[in-house]
Amino acid sequence: MKVYGDSQSGNCYKVKLMLSLLDLKHEWIHVDILSGESHTEAFLDKNPTGKIPLLALDDGRYIAESNAIINYLATGSEFLSTDPFDYAKVQQWQFFEQYSHEPYIAVARFIAKYLGLPAERKAEYLAKQAGGHKALQVMEQQLLKTPFLTGNKITTADITLYGYTHVADEGGFDLLRYPAIIQWLKRIQSLPNFIAM
Amino acid sequence: MKVYGDSQSGNCYKVKLMLSLLDLKHEWIHVDILSGESHTEAFLDKNPTGKIPLLALDDGRYIAESNAIINYLATGSEFLSTDPFDYAKVQQWQFFEQYSHEPYIAVARFIAKYLGLPAERKAEYLAKQAGGHKALQVMEQQLLKTPFLTGNKITTADITLYGYTHVADEGGFDLLRYPAIIQWLKRIQSLPNFIAM
Repeated sequence: MKVYGDSQSGNCYKVKLMLSLLDLKHEWIHVDILSGESHTEAFLDKNPTGKIPLLALDDGRYIAESNAIINYLATGSEFLSTDPFDYAKVQQWQFFEQYSHEPYIAVARFIAKYLGLPAERKAEYLAKQAGGHKALQVMEQQLLKTPFLTGNKITTADITLYGYTHVADEGGFDLLRYPAIIQWLKRIQSLPNFIAM
Repeated sequence: MKVYGDSQSGNCYKVKLMLSLLDLKHEWIHVDILSGESHTEAFLDKNPTGKIPLLALDDGRYIAESNAIINYLATGSEFLSTDPFDYAKVQQWQFFEQYSHEPYIAVARFIAKYLGLPAERKAEYLAKQAGGHKALQVMEQQLLKTPFLTGNKITTADITLYGYTHVADEGGFDLLRYPAIIQWLKRIQSLPNFIAM
């Protein structure tokens, strides 16, 4: 299979990390979003939203959206339970990530790291801080109770939230305020076949 | 089981519609978010994000996030395939909805319908229009090819996107520009046990 992505994007890195943890063979095709490579006609034919990451299966079918991709890859592995309640809790954290975490932490990081915090986006960057800290507090509260987000075992929900949380400092979020998150990051970093961004 | 929600919210209505289509018995507990009922200590104990809808199972466990809830409810039904690729495509559309559809269409509707389009949020309302139309175009493109979002059969992905799409006009989006979406809305409205918002 092939993955279209940019491993400096947290959404793409989630997929890269999942592939490594599962030791799955794949071809990585670099797509430079800043130069418009995800909005060429050829790419839009593959994914009409013009977004990466995108998984291309060997039979010509595609799956988009990082969290849908990693759940697909992890099906049948120790990272994803088939119990309906357990799977629902995994998805609960993943939808939380896309709606209540990524739009604050990843966007603040993008403005600071990729755009160099230009004056015209400073207000937006500052406005992202409260929402980002709210998301981190929700995670901290859970991780004070259980070693992983859905309980005692690692799941794809942890891979999802690891994506941007471990680089939250690049968006101005001081993780030292969240000791349980720091311990959880270390737990993930010590997994066999872990790869850094 | 119990559902905490406000059926005028598209996210909550998705759950109400899914429960009706599956003919599942439940108790609906109205939560008024505008008066802060989702941020009381008692509610935050149930769901630390302070968001509705929230599903309470009879055994005391909770599931949050509308799309996680409807996938849980639909497990084993005709609305959700167990095939890993088919399930991944359902999730792909659901993550698209939470990241690329809801933040534009639902937020524009909220500003117009609930807040009465106040002058200080007019710019934000107008800024939501382009993103909303982009999401509707992605849906239209798919629905010109297949009767439902993931193919020939209805899935929870259709319930997810129906939630806010059918009231997109309340956010200023003229659906007459999207004839395939209009036909798809009618297909859903004609399902047995369909209930309107």
